[in-house]
Amino acid sequence: MELLEEAHGTTVLRHHPKAPPAPTWRRWVVGNPLATADAPHQTVGKLVGLAVFASDALSSTAYSTQEVLIILAAAGIGAFNFSIPISLAIVVLLTILTFSYEQTIHAYPNGGGAYIVARDNLGELPAQTAGAALLTDYILTVSVSISSGVAQIVSAYPTLYPFRVEIAVGFVMFIMLINLRGVKESGFTFAIPTYYFFLMMTMTIGVGFFRYLTGSLGTVVNPPMDMMTTMVHPITLFLILRAFASGTTALTGVEAISNGITAFKEPRSRNAGITLLWMSLLLGSFLIGITVLCHLVGALPSEEETVFSQIARTAYNGRGFLYLGMISATTVILVMAANTAFADFPRLGALHAGDGFLPHQLTFRGDRLVFSRGIIALAVISSALIIAFQASVTNLIPLYAIGVFLSFTLSQAGMARRWWKVGHLTPGVEIKEPGSTLRYESNWQYKMIINGLGSLCTFVVMIVFAVTKFKDGAWVVVLLTPLLVSIFFSIHHHYKSLAEHLSLEEFADEPRIARHRVIIPIAGVHRGTLAALRYARSISDDITAVHVSMDPEEAKRVQQKWEQWGDGVRLVVLESPYRLFIEPLLEYIEKIDDQITPSEMITVVVPRFVHSKHLTSYLHTQTADTLRKNLLNRKEIVIMEVPYQVEG
Amino acid sequence: MELLEEAHGTTVLRHHPKAPPAPTWRRWVVGNPLATADAPHQTVGKLVGLAVFASDALSSTAYSTQEVLIILAAAGIGAFNFSIPISLAIVVLLTILTFSYEQTIHAYPNGGGAYIVARDNLGELPAQTAGAALLTDYILTVSVSISSGVAQIVSAYPTLYPFRVEIAVGFVMFIMLINLRGVKESGFTFAIPTYYFFLMMTMTIGVGFFRYLTGSLGTVVNPPMDMMTTMVHPITLFLILRAFASGTTALTGVEAISNGITAFKEPRSRNAGITLLWMSLLLGSFLIGITVLCHLVGALPSEEETVFSQIARTAYNGRGFLYLGMISATTVILVMAANTAFADFPRLGALHAGDGFLPHQLTFRGDRLVFSRGIIALAVISSALIIAFQASVTNLIPLYAIGVFLSFTLSQAGMARRWWKVGHLTPGVEIKEPGSTLRYESNWQYKMIINGLGSLCTFVVMIVFAVTKFKDGAWVVVLLTPLLVSIFFSIHHHYKSLAEHLSLEEFADEPRIARHRVIIPIAGVHRGTLAALRYARSISDDITAVHVSMDPEEAKRVQQKWEQWGDGVRLVVLESPYRLFIEPLLEYIEKIDDQITPSEMITVVVPRFVHSKHLTSYLHTQTADTLRKNLLNRKEIVIMEVPYQVEG
Repeated sequence: MELLEEAHGTTVLRHHPKAPPAPTWRRWVVGNPLATADAPHQTVGKLVGLAVFASDALSSTAYSTQEVLIILAAAGIGAFNFSIPISLAIVVLLTILTFSYEQTIHAYPNGGGAYIVARDNLGELPAQTAGAALLTDYILTVSVSISSGVAQIVSAYPTLYPFRVEIAVGFVMFIMLINLRGVKESGFTFAIPTYYFFLMMTMTIGVGFFRYLTGSLGTVVNPPMDMMTTMVHPITLFLILRAFASGTTALTGVEAISNGITAFKEPRSRNAGITLLWMSLLLGSFLIGITVLCHLVGALPSEEETVFSQIARTAYNGRGFLYLGMISATTVILVMAANTAFADFPRLGALHAGDGFLPHQLTFRGDRLVFSRGIIALAVISSALIIAFQASVTNLIPLYAIGVFLSFTLSQAGMARRWWKVGHLTPGVEIKEPGSTLRYESNWQYKMIINGLGSLCTFVVMIVFAVTKFKDGAWVVVLLTPLLVSIFFSIHHHYKSLAEHLSLEEFADEPRIARHRVIIPIAGVHRGTLAALRYARSISDDITAVHVSMDPEEAKRVQQKWEQWGDGVRLVVLESPYRLFIEPLLEYIEKIDDQITPSEMITVVVPRFVHSKHLTSYLHTQTADTLRKNLLNRKEIVIMEVPYQVEG
Repeated sequence: MELLEEAHGTTVLRHHPKAPPAPTWRRWVVGNPLATADAPHQTVGKLVGLAVFASDALSSTAYSTQEVLIILAAAGIGAFNFSIPISLAIVVLLTILTFSYEQTIHAYPNGGGAYIVARDNLGELPAQTAGAALLTDYILTVSVSISSGVAQIVSAYPTLYPFRVEIAVGFVMFIMLINLRGVKESGFTFAIPTYYFFLMMTMTIGVGFFRYLTGSLGTVVNPPMDMMTTMVHPITLFLILRAFASGTTALTGVEAISNGITAFKEPRSRNAGITLLWMSLLLGSFLIGITVLCHLVGALPSEEETVFSQIARTAYNGRGFLYLGMISATTVILVMAANTAFADFPRLGALHAGDGFLPHQLTFRGDRLVFSRGIIALAVISSALIIAFQASVTNLIPLYAIGVFLSFTLSQAGMARRWWKVGHLTPGVEIKEPGSTLRYESNWQYKMIINGLGSLCTFVVMIVFAVTKFKDGAWVVVLLTPLLVSIFFSIHHHYKSLAEHLSLEEFADEPRIARHRVIIPIAGVHRGTLAALRYARSISDDITAVHVSMDPEEAKRVQQKWEQWGDGVRLVVLESPYRLFIEPLLEYIEKIDDQITPSEMITVVVPRFVHSKHLTSYLHTQTADTLRKNLLNRKEIVIMEVPYQVEG
């Protein structure tokens, strides 16, 4: 603690955190918490920044092409030709989104996540909706990324296929433990695997195209046939839209940079914007490259072997060293994508809480209990989804992108609204909003159109997604999102009504407490009782000890001992012939409470044994807790426990 | 409350219980608790007494014969001839036990359960062992009786066979709810079903023998063949002993009357003793009757149809009205046997607790929370057993009777020991023990031999049971019992060492509390804070308000408001740049605590919102709880909450 100021009866101290001691079991499982975990991480340049923020977006190439093919497979192999125009459409959408988010990055230099942009420009309801969509989305990012990562492993080692659910849950638990331990997010940790992935992807696609051009590529040997049926459906617009919807999952994670602008070196908006362009360029190229290669080698979508694996083993002639390099790089980047959700989930929760839409404890950074709960909750829910959907990416996808696109839509709509406001300001005037500063810009119409277009496109995609995937599982999210939003609002209502009740407007001081009655329930006369008596003595002179007696002989002993040790304090013995304990005590306290005047208070002082072993508390009557529960609604009764330390 | 006495600064009041209010959800599920539930039930005569205490013992005829046949089936149909000598041996054992328990009833007119008899005559270890065995036994009584009851239903309605586990668990839940509601144990409730069972049993056996003698009985039509194999093992002594061990389950429940002697009208020992003789007579006749009839009609043991059902449908020519009467009577008495375990389990727990071997809260009669927990625990564990053993009586039996016979052995050994003491008293001298009064009796050798014989026989049976059923599941109980006993003793150790620590021998009074420092953590300045301040004012003049600030603007607002409302009390602002909340507060309190002298105390007064809706507590920081957990080991710090009522 550092003394900052001392004046007018007010002292200001500054707290410098040190590593808090962890309970023993935690130290064993997750180690001591890192003190630095809460410190803001150092700023990064563009190269490292790309590594930190790209894992979520780029990793989705591992499943999006495959998911497009799975839908098209219903119409037979011939329908696979549509995968190329579909991926081109997705790249067009990516381009629009990139320009749209580039503008967000410059407008919100302190971080412009969907929640903040929607809140500042559209209001509470859209902001809460965006937040609910994102929280759902983080859960699914974990489930989908891990399931896809395990699918890569299973492709390389098909004998592991029956254990894919166990492996996937194991990965989630591993990431959970890492995060409970406290992640030290150094750029370095991210850079190695991300650039390894870039390298392997570029090489695989490069080798593939080179061999195609030199005529030595060939097609997939023994392609997996499990998704191909002889029942061929006709190609309909609905089918193509469904396939397109599956493909749009490639765009999840594009927003990551706009959330984390503060992590970049100055000029941070510029650096972040350039990084976003690079990321989109890589994402688009990988997507097109993979889709075309799929087509060239005749890869078939499958639950047993990913198309990545089929491409890699065709390009590298079997499951050799380079093949395993490609597969491991993909797995690692998918696991890292899941890991980012573990960091973002509590962070977004804190934003909601700060605005009073989630329990406000979530805003405390260092309260590890709260953080741990969020991390464990995320791990448990995403594991449950993995188990329920048997670690199948195809089954999980219908729940996934709808939330992402809802947040895209709201965020871009918020930006469009912002440009409208900007365009109607008098030049020279500045308006400070919580997340950004508004000042007139001449080309506001142009920027509004870009964001508006982004919002419109993502809205259309969301609707297409919701309609074409409704039956497959999208209905869950369609129902869940409004439910979450209504929970957020009811929490908000509670905080607001509490604040009104506690308001000091029209508050008249209550009279001073004139008389303070103290009641000490005693089970026997021992050191603990005397500690409570000693305490009671210091707060009042009006003390009554109360002994609930189920055994007349015990009562006699208590009376005799009290005469010796009770310091002249009055003793009331409540005979309880039916061996009730709490009921007579409660009745006695309530009777006294009914008689007192507004200037009197009753304090019940309960002796409590404190023991080094935790379990032993079950061996003692939790009198104070029970009294508290039962006397909740009596505002002039205070229940306190005086601890008495027992060793051994 | 009734005033009994008032003198020397001591007031004695007597409490008369009234129905306590139940929380809403409980009222919906289990209704309001009955005030009379705890009142001692009226005393009963022999006829009603038989009904009250016989259900456990008599209901076991429903499975014991069948279980003997199941073991013998391994040696083919020919081995079934051994069932009659085996049942005769069981009746001999029953006779010995009856005379043995008859003596217990007269020696312990206030109730002579195995726990009490072992405790008074053999010491702590045997008593705890007997208690552990009985507690295990009550759990199994529920599982076995309900499983057998469901087997009767399934016999009548074979289509229900696939749902037997669900039905059995449903029954357990039903009994649990009944018991949570509070059972009003009137003799009447017991008399109807028990006498209905007597009637149906007598009639079925009577009709069976009558038709056999008149030559019209015939054999079972389509007997169930699921337990009969073509692989026939030779008949060995081991097989016969195993079959005998299974049959001894018929004797479970014989001890019930000796536990409940106080329920009888005076002369209660005499009445209870006569009732015991009647019960044994009925039990023995039913057992022999059923076994012989099984033999006559050629009933085969089965998981799908009980031998009771086979006898009944042969005697009554199919599944008619009388058949259903017999089956329903059996089911009802089995369910009632399970119900008695729900009453005995917490009662025995209270005895253990009274002697300090289980948490002492269990001794409070009316603390419904404790009772409810015992009832729910019993229901959950017995349901788990039913699920694990697929509601199969045959699979459950190996765990069952071993505990019963262990308690028989200890109880009879205790009685034998008692007669030894009685025989060595000088005539005319009386020794009062907690459960009985010892005075010289001339025929003590004779009585000692009877109890000794009982103890020896049951001991041998227990060993036979443990050896022959060890692999089938008896090992669980063989391991569990010592484990339970060691838990009981470690609880006892805790209470004993606590009592030593709290003892006032060599206790020197601590100095009076000279200075009382009060710390009020405040999140803001509002009515709740002022209520806490008002309270703090009444216990000390040395008050410091502490605000942990994560936001400088908020801190400024708190400072300004405190100047207006803080009544001149000092304010400390703890700046927490890393958004930690509890850590700075703890550090501040600990720093002050390190400076104080032994005559000073620190009281932390935490404002607490009290809300009619329970869930809302999750929306507030449980500051007091967290502080309490972290400051446990500092004996001069007291943490208290001042409630502030918020409506709506």
